[in-house]
Amino acid sequence: MTYNEQNIFARILRGELPAIKVYEDDRTLAFMDIMPQAEGHTLVIPKTAAVTLLDLPAEDAAYTIQIVQKVARAIEKALDKKGIILMQLSGEEAGQTVPHVHFHLIPESLHQLRQHAGQMGDQEHIKRLAEKIKAAIASE
Amino acid sequence: MTYNEQNIFARILRGELPAIKVYEDDRTLAFMDIMPQAEGHTLVIPKTAAVTLLDLPAEDAAYTIQIVQKVARAIEKALDKKGIILMQLSGEEAGQTVPHVHFHLIPESLHQLRQHAGQMGDQEHIKRLAEKIKAAIASE
Repeated sequence: MTYNEQNIFARILRGELPAIKVYEDDRTLAFMDIMPQAEGHTLVIPKTAAVTLLDLPAEDAAYTIQIVQKVARAIEKALDKKGIILMQLSGEEAGQTVPHVHFHLIPESLHQLRQHAGQMGDQEHIKRLAEKIKAAIASE
Repeated sequence: MTYNEQNIFARILRGELPAIKVYEDDRTLAFMDIMPQAEGHTLVIPKTAAVTLLDLPAEDAAYTIQIVQKVARAIEKALDKKGIILMQLSGEEAGQTVPHVHFHLIPESLHQLRQHAGQMGDQEHIKRLAEKIKAAIASE
């Protein structure tokens, strides 16, 4: 699939748009979803330009899932949550809205989940959650 | 988390329960969900005894996600689907029902998804889908 360099995650990766980051290294970035489906909703993305998980080079998938694990453990610990939904939508038809591969981490029950990309969250509250998650990652 | 050796995926891995398999190697197994949330619903599991993705050794996560990619591509190709949901539930609180880490691959829109583990599918139909997916994996 053709990658659109103007998608919002590409722009976040280039520093053209802000993000509430919780983790970054040379291959991945983790940041808060600004329209959370539940408190603590975090996204993990590889820096490689790929639209879906099916397009992503295997080595990037292998690396990114380990960061997904790290961030998931930090969310549980930092926010005292039990149970995390990992969701990754490949393709518009599945419900993917931003055409850069991303893993959702949502500390919530599948049965309670709010609608995807429904409404803006309280950004100050989200920033406070991010600080807690960052601290938990740093202390892992 | 303590691993229960009697969970149904552990029993499938030991050959004590049947499964409609689409892929197997020494570290992973992929098989059809017998209560599919959509046509082509497939599960990918590591053979390592781990309850959730948060417990799974990093190297198993890294390997398994590559098999998830392989199986996802095969589902799209074999069943002529567009769009795949990857879902992985960690913890009962999130909605995890079988306490062995598993990745759901569901070729469907998030907005159309049937209820999790709602009802048994037509097993003969599922077997025919599995044959197509297996063939697509073999020809990758």
